[in-house]
Amino acid sequence: MYSFRNDYSESAHPNILKALVETNMSQLLGYGMDEHTQAAIKYMKEKMQAKNVDIHFVSGGTQANLLATAGFLRPFDAVICTNSAHIHTHEAGSVEATGHKVLVEYAEDGKLTPAMVEHAIKVNSAEETPNPKMVYISNATELGTIHTKKELEELYECCKKYGMYFFIDGARIGSALAWKNAGTTLADYPKLCDAFYIGGTKNGALLGEAIVIVNDELKANFRRNMKQRGAILAKGKVTGIQFEELFKGNLYMELAEHANAMADKLREGIKECAYPFLVETPSNQMFPIFPNEVLEKLQEEFVIPEWEVEIDDANTCVRIVTSWATEEAQVDRFVALLKSL
Amino acid sequence: MYSFRNDYSESAHPNILKALVETNMSQLLGYGMDEHTQAAIKYMKEKMQAKNVDIHFVSGGTQANLLATAGFLRPFDAVICTNSAHIHTHEAGSVEATGHKVLVEYAEDGKLTPAMVEHAIKVNSAEETPNPKMVYISNATELGTIHTKKELEELYECCKKYGMYFFIDGARIGSALAWKNAGTTLADYPKLCDAFYIGGTKNGALLGEAIVIVNDELKANFRRNMKQRGAILAKGKVTGIQFEELFKGNLYMELAEHANAMADKLREGIKECAYPFLVETPSNQMFPIFPNEVLEKLQEEFVIPEWEVEIDDANTCVRIVTSWATEEAQVDRFVALLKSL
Amino acid sequence: MYSFRNDYSESAHPNILKALVETNMSQLLGYGMDEHTQAAIKYMKEKMQAKNVDIHFVSGGTQANLLATAGFLRPFDAVICTNSAHIHTHEAGSVEATGHKVLVEYAEDGKLTPAMVEHAIKVNSAEETPNPKMVYISNATELGTIHTKKELEELYECCKKYGMYFFIDGARIGSALAWKNAGTTLADYPKLCDAFYIGGTKNGALLGEAIVIVNDELKANFRRNMKQRGAILAKGKVTGIQFEELFKGNLYMELAEHANAMADKLREGIKECAYPFLVETPSNQMFPIFPNEVLEKLQEEFVIPEWEVEIDDANTCVRIVTSWATEEAQVDRFVALLKSL
Amino acid sequence: MYSFRNDYSESAHPNILKALVETNMSQLLGYGMDEHTQAAIKYMKEKMQAKNVDIHFVSGGTQANLLATAGFLRPFDAVICTNSAHIHTHEAGSVEATGHKVLVEYAEDGKLTPAMVEHAIKVNSAEETPNPKMVYISNATELGTIHTKKELEELYECCKKYGMYFFIDGARIGSALAWKNAGTTLADYPKLCDAFYIGGTKNGALLGEAIVIVNDELKANFRRNMKQRGAILAKGKVTGIQFEELFKGNLYMELAEHANAMADKLREGIKECAYPFLVETPSNQMFPIFPNEVLEKLQEEFVIPEWEVEIDDANTCVRIVTSWATEEAQVDRFVALLKSL
Repeated sequence: MYSFRNDYSESAHPNILKALVETNMSQLLGYGMDEHTQAAIKYMKEKMQAKNVDIHFVSGGTQANLLATAGFLRPFDAVICTNSAHIHTHEAGSVEATGHKVLVEYAEDGKLTPAMVEHAIKVNSAEETPNPKMVYISNATELGTIHTKKELEELYECCKKYGMYFFIDGARIGSALAWKNAGTTLADYPKLCDAFYIGGTKNGALLGEAIVIVNDELKANFRRNMKQRGAILAKGKVTGIQFEELFKGNLYMELAEHANAMADKLREGIKECAYPFLVETPSNQMFPIFPNEVLEKLQEEFVIPEWEVEIDDANTCVRIVTSWATEEAQVDRFVALLKSL
Repeated sequence: MYSFRNDYSESAHPNILKALVETNMSQLLGYGMDEHTQAAIKYMKEKMQAKNVDIHFVSGGTQANLLATAGFLRPFDAVICTNSAHIHTHEAGSVEATGHKVLVEYAEDGKLTPAMVEHAIKVNSAEETPNPKMVYISNATELGTIHTKKELEELYECCKKYGMYFFIDGARIGSALAWKNAGTTLADYPKLCDAFYIGGTKNGALLGEAIVIVNDELKANFRRNMKQRGAILAKGKVTGIQFEELFKGNLYMELAEHANAMADKLREGIKECAYPFLVETPSNQMFPIFPNEVLEKLQEEFVIPEWEVEIDDANTCVRIVTSWATEEAQVDRFVALLKSL
Repeated sequence: MYSFRNDYSESAHPNILKALVETNMSQLLGYGMDEHTQAAIKYMKEKMQAKNVDIHFVSGGTQANLLATAGFLRPFDAVICTNSAHIHTHEAGSVEATGHKVLVEYAEDGKLTPAMVEHAIKVNSAEETPNPKMVYISNATELGTIHTKKELEELYECCKKYGMYFFIDGARIGSALAWKNAGTTLADYPKLCDAFYIGGTKNGALLGEAIVIVNDELKANFRRNMKQRGAILAKGKVTGIQFEELFKGNLYMELAEHANAMADKLREGIKECAYPFLVETPSNQMFPIFPNEVLEKLQEEFVIPEWEVEIDDANTCVRIVTSWATEEAQVDRFVALLKSL
Repeated sequence: MYSFRNDYSESAHPNILKALVETNMSQLLGYGMDEHTQAAIKYMKEKMQAKNVDIHFVSGGTQANLLATAGFLRPFDAVICTNSAHIHTHEAGSVEATGHKVLVEYAEDGKLTPAMVEHAIKVNSAEETPNPKMVYISNATELGTIHTKKELEELYECCKKYGMYFFIDGARIGSALAWKNAGTTLADYPKLCDAFYIGGTKNGALLGEAIVIVNDELKANFRRNMKQRGAILAKGKVTGIQFEELFKGNLYMELAEHANAMADKLREGIKECAYPFLVETPSNQMFPIFPNEVLEKLQEEFVIPEWEVEIDDANTCVRIVTSWATEEAQVDRFVALLKSL
């Protein structure tokens, strides 16, 4: 069975493994002090056209999010996000484990708006409430939707107006960047937020996310923060070598574009069959709703797991995810099967 | 320059990289649910002759230690360790960041004794003190010394007598196992403590440590604990595949034995030249004291960094570490150079 | 202006101050080891008909709640409560500051139900969610409603079914007990939950709440927990003497009954004038909705602050609270004024 | 038996109780917004000749210390103190429970010096260590010694040199101020540190300590910090009224001077009998060493508990504490008895 379960079923892009093999026996400094990590940082800064950002590599997304929360906030500060935000629903209370409350706003499409931020601030203005201090969004979101450049600008404006930090979870930032209508390049992001992370795990790396800190206020002692939370790898080169491969040329974007292209083709096929979606998405995630008997047939050939939202007795919502590794032939096969049902 | 800086300068044993390459494009379940992780667990249980232990793979040693502390203790519980313990000196306050106090006993050779444990318990018996609940040791220790089977038994007895948990940091457990005089095999460890971890990073893996939980009381919800601290890799197979390689045959022990053999040879050479050591060590770490002019010559050819302990104006203590990757020719070259000085 | 703002505007019942004066110069043991604290515990156990409960006095309700959370839970455990729960809305993230997530269920009348508990458990069943382990309710609730004996029994059954602890915030337990239709006496409470607290501050004490731990699992080291959070008063007798006064006879219930009687009279007067309430309440809190011009007149004579819920342009919801100290003449004057408008 | 156990055996100075009685039935605002709390703040600022300090009242010393730690520090920051510091030995790990490591320097007389601070900074300079950010001392110290004005100035200079905060635990600041040779008045303290607290519990209050924040950096959201840790009393007036009494005139200093005078008299008597002291102290605490048979006789008439430090088989160290409430006749009786032995 071919799997559309997620974008981390396969391991790493072959170039990355090749680089790991080639550098294997070099004696290098630990903790990210090696030359590959430094090269990765150089390439990424060039792509971002930002000399003054700090870049730190960590092993996963939850780790990146909790490091940002712990590292940026004072104990009485809270984080605003939507009800579908990864930190609220899929990280086992990691933000709260660092001592901070998550203030939740409901968003049907997973996208936070300035109005929601202002609502959360209003409700939490008295001293018997925590202090709203950071806005968290994912881009692309957990529902596969994408904040456009304009929407990000408006959110950042709102944050600055209220003295809040704006942090973007970029586990799937590749997919967001690869969607042309979003109107963003990587060089925009340092101008659009105080900090964000660039996801490797879901875009071709074995493991690794790159936290990018733009706001000078947030930079001091971040490596101590990482050390304290167990986030500095002894063999830091493992992430450094991978990000060097992803960013020395255009590999990172090529992988994301492939994932989006495969998703577009799948989406088009599903739309031609007139099946509805839980929400309209332009990214590598989609949430189609199939009649149960159609789904049963599809699931005989493909792994497409049910999504958390219940529809009705006759129909089921599934999550389909494409990735850098998705084979076009399998996409074609899926669409053909669907059309045949 | 050839480096004896540490045991994590090179990346991974070639077999491990080969396995990563071979499995690269397989679509596997995430979060350690994949077949390689399950195989690794099976092989490790066999080696430990322990069916009922829980095994969890994480990315580094500080992470393993903080997960144990956070996962096993109640908020008012404290950890007893020596003044050179990794959790006290080299983890940036990671234990305290989970809310627990570290109770420190002074040990010249880095080895905790039952008498020290009892002293710490006595000093912390009143209710205005934290509750001593876990004993932490490293084996081999941070000073390169090794607790023997008898010493471990006595410590565990002492822990059980006072209702405390005994946790062993096994970042260098390979070296401890490979020292014959310690009298231990991996199958002994589940009988000698409540939980421990088996280090991969310092014994041939790219990254990864295996936490082994023996005591049933400590098992529940440990994966939630891991998730909450950002310690579950999406591509859990990355650690699973590595430990599968290390434990499907005898690779783990072979690598450790090589490291110890190289250390023995180095130590013998240094002893023949009659240089003293900070402390007598049988593991892959040694702390010789050289006259400064001798050291200067050595450091022209080899990376052997100064250790934290100051000796006097004329002599300097360095830390020399061998590993699975140490080349015997370089050891010979080092000894020859030393003898020539 | 006479104030119906809350039930802690006045200081303490005169008997309590008298007892503080009489015992003032006695040299007594600190930290609650004194004879008055011990007497208070004895009287309270008698009233509760429970010999095996542990009783601890602390200075305030937020402190009681955070001590319960920190003391009873493991780091990955979470607390279920309603959207109006004090721990969610009025304690500045105190539960999260101890590392635990609050799982919120919406309840129009402020009362949690077993169905809500089951919903929260269902949504948080996977290992990427925190572990629902404690149910928190206030009785009387923050909206002035009261859980009856039957409702408490059902909640406790539900908790036991799912291996969860049931904790009751009794800041206003006096009012809940004084409402006959609830069908509870203090002796019922140790049979209805794992732990609860009996509020002093809002029922005649200068300060002080009594945490009652019923479940043996939760008792160990609770005083260390208190010490660690700064909750043990050096002059522990200050709370001990107060609870001794409140419970050596029937004073605690008399004060609560007076508060409820005054509330009943006020409520009746408001109902006679046909003004609606936000929610039907039988306790010492009520939330009437007045036309703005009526409210303006009332507020010229009485402190009755606006409540957090907005009604419409013409009408406003206020919170009116009576207490052990409420003067009946002022209640009569309020009702007379209202009828005259 | 008359007790010299501590300075919190009796309750409150009669003026304080009188004020509590007189204001008892006034309806006042909660949470420290009342007029008495505001008056206390005004009087204290006048005594300190400092208009810009923030003053917050809390219920105890451990609470004051943990609020300072939690409120002033970032997660990776650590606190430097001596081995006898209250936060290290008598608060059950309260600082660690807020996530911060305590870095301990050994001081025979309980007094931290700039050299010790510099040592702790040196040992904790690498990124695998926590970041030394706050210096904690008690004045008077836990061993009854007192830092002079010059010593405080030197410590503060040292702190500023290294970008650290200087926090003084003033549980017994009264005794430190009342010792003429220290050369300090309350008006000096805001110039000598970033924050400190003025102890009420050990100098005549029922309960209550006043946290004084001098450094503007540390002021924001401190009340949210307090709320979150359960440190804001609903009836905030209870502490406000007490500090109003203590500081509207000279009562606070009078009480401390009495305690010191009684200690001086006791000390003189003991010295006349040629018994040694563990350490020379000028405050209301002393640690004489008595032959066991002398001690036995003394303990038949007076409560003078053994101190934590063991002397030898024939002699025992005790702690003797005087207070605002110590009766001179009892001091005379003690000295007479001692001389008769």
